[in-house]
Amino acid sequence: MSAPRITPVDGGVTAPKGFRAAGVSCGIKASGARDLTLIAADGPVSAAAVFTTNLAQAAPVLVSRSHLAASKGRAAAIVVNSGCANACTGEEGLANARRMTEEVASALGCEPERLLVASTGVIGVALPIDRVAAGIQAACSSLAHGKGSEAAQAIMTTDPFPKEHAVRVTTPRGSFSIGAMAKGSGMIEPNMATMLGFIATDAQVAPAMLQRALAESARDTFNAITVDGECSTNDSLFAMASGNSGVAIDEELYPALLDGLLSVSRPLALGIVRGGEGATKVIAVSVYDANTGDEARQVARTVANSPLVKTAVHGADPNWGRIVAAAGRAGVRFDMQRVTVRIGGILLFENGLPHDESAQRAAEILKRDTVDIEISLGAGNASATIWGCDLSAEYVRINGEYRT
Amino acid sequence: MSAPRITPVDGGVTAPKGFRAAGVSCGIKASGARDLTLIAADGPVSAAAVFTTNLAQAAPVLVSRSHLAASKGRAAAIVVNSGCANACTGEEGLANARRMTEEVASALGCEPERLLVASTGVIGVALPIDRVAAGIQAACSSLAHGKGSEAAQAIMTTDPFPKEHAVRVTTPRGSFSIGAMAKGSGMIEPNMATMLGFIATDAQVAPAMLQRALAESARDTFNAITVDGECSTNDSLFAMASGNSGVAIDEELYPALLDGLLSVSRPLALGIVRGGEGATKVIAVSVYDANTGDEARQVARTVANSPLVKTAVHGADPNWGRIVAAAGRAGVRFDMQRVTVRIGGILLFENGLPHDESAQRAAEILKRDTVDIEISLGAGNASATIWGCDLSAEYVRINGEYRT
Repeated sequence: MSAPRITPVDGGVTAPKGFRAAGVSCGIKASGARDLTLIAADGPVSAAAVFTTNLAQAAPVLVSRSHLAASKGRAAAIVVNSGCANACTGEEGLANARRMTEEVASALGCEPERLLVASTGVIGVALPIDRVAAGIQAACSSLAHGKGSEAAQAIMTTDPFPKEHAVRVTTPRGSFSIGAMAKGSGMIEPNMATMLGFIATDAQVAPAMLQRALAESARDTFNAITVDGECSTNDSLFAMASGNSGVAIDEELYPALLDGLLSVSRPLALGIVRGGEGATKVIAVSVYDANTGDEARQVARTVANSPLVKTAVHGADPNWGRIVAAAGRAGVRFDMQRVTVRIGGILLFENGLPHDESAQRAAEILKRDTVDIEISLGAGNASATIWGCDLSAEYVRINGEYRT
Repeated sequence: MSAPRITPVDGGVTAPKGFRAAGVSCGIKASGARDLTLIAADGPVSAAAVFTTNLAQAAPVLVSRSHLAASKGRAAAIVVNSGCANACTGEEGLANARRMTEEVASALGCEPERLLVASTGVIGVALPIDRVAAGIQAACSSLAHGKGSEAAQAIMTTDPFPKEHAVRVTTPRGSFSIGAMAKGSGMIEPNMATMLGFIATDAQVAPAMLQRALAESARDTFNAITVDGECSTNDSLFAMASGNSGVAIDEELYPALLDGLLSVSRPLALGIVRGGEGATKVIAVSVYDANTGDEARQVARTVANSPLVKTAVHGADPNWGRIVAAAGRAGVRFDMQRVTVRIGGILLFENGLPHDESAQRAAEILKRDTVDIEISLGAGNASATIWGCDLSAEYVRINGEYRT
């Protein structure tokens, strides 16, 4: 089948047919900003999720995991609060996360096991559950198509801007939409970190296939970003498929679904990095000619997480030496004599030696707000890209003052 | 045999009998500060070394490795320059490192293979070898006992203060001295990073035993520190043993030698962290009740390298949640319900729940210049400590502006 045509559309997470959303203020955030989000399908639909790999898992992660298993990949809605992570909160936290699902289930008239839940914010603080319950009632009664932007605002914490994207995927067998939103700013690392992502589609997809496509698209998008190498207790990426477009995804259409998921996920993942705490530049670290994709990712991650590379890029210093040193400590075997390093396409290191005559041109390129670092290992044919950001004094300020 | 008595003495690396040193300015550093160091024994003596694990190894590392192998662990002197790492400098760099050893060998009247060499500074810049050669002549003619401090100054780069220490080890079979100096400030991680260390002793030790004691003492000192998780191309730790005290180290006296090495290495390693780029506090992360020492070290390193923990400590925020989250992503399996977290002895996390009533007391303790973080995994009997430092805006400033 020919490649699908993918075009951006408005509407964010509510762009696909069969989804409504709301974003309200329930009083968790002292600022009075929106802090409660609801995304609802018209009834139980296919659902999938990818969760944090951290040993410390927040109550909403535990509850969502359990509900998704009990419902065999079917969900009617996702309820999300920002401003409080409901993590390290013990039995009370689990009860509060369940209570959130029960409040929505009762208002929408479905089983609590059909509800998913997510939280983001400060760790170790109990939810003001009565205020959250009141907020849920308000959100349920204000659910509407076209409220994707409102929902995207209500999941933000330290994010400098909301992140949403939607596309229309046109295939020879019909077209469907995918809409998504995400949040995340600090505690972001390759394995999801304090990242929440929500994807809705009106394609008709069985739960197992939706799970497979979500995991595959996350590997090269939400799991290929890093702000500070941290991994949070609350990371969750959800997908729901209403089927309202009438386009049924089978193996033939699977690549179109995957392309669509990648298309909505990539700008959101990049948005998380661009809005990373204190970030002034996005750094795309691409590793080529590695023996395996995993080795390419490992070298790219080590370089993208290197404080010395991040501060050099922040200072527009074409310091290829720090790139070489970070690649060399990544735990991957390769021949340093065959390595090349380019910044913004400009060759700075080859045959074990610098090309310092090009440093000034590279320094100019480093002043841009997106920087490409390309490393060839000269070994095999695999490649990978990790997106990170620079490290600024502002990151230190934000994280030295966040809670106190 | 009873435990040795260990007492601090003056003199740094030249405290032991049989060693002279010099530190001169040869013009590598634009500031005119001392940048060339020589440590010389009266003739070839036992020598040992531990080098960087980075794939990218600087020319002096390659030359020192090869000389130490060729001489079967015997060396007459170590020549060191600061201000230029002589790394990623290709064949010319190797020739320059060899030339440094030849210049010293010729002045001291020994084989070049009896010489060790180390460099620290900017990567990818060629040494001004003629100036270095002239500096070597000046250093050789000014070698003297009692110039340990001068030598310790001449190996500094961004170090805010020189680091030297010496002890006298008294055993029932006689006493010997150990003197040492080190440098290092940024690019410091558990596996040595841009760290140079030099230890001299007048104990009589065979090369193999000296190597074993050096590696064992480094594991819990120079290899148990981190400033920024980076590992450099030039890390080297050297030891020389003149035998001039007349005390021969055998298996019975090995623990006394090891104790002495630990005694001089620990304050130098802590000095590197205390003088870490932008550091305002030393953070000692101790992990207890782990299944193995390696697992304890892995958790401690992950916490000590966490940017969110480092910024929280910088801001005197008793943010145990970030400590729990960092421990949870360390790649070690344990039961989070059995974990306890203490800051400065104050219990902040237990049974999966916070003790927020103690947060204010912990915040007071975090204002001190040394902070103890203690994590019990509630699993086995192994423990480990890693020393790190906080992350400040000054680190970003130093590393964003270092080379440009």
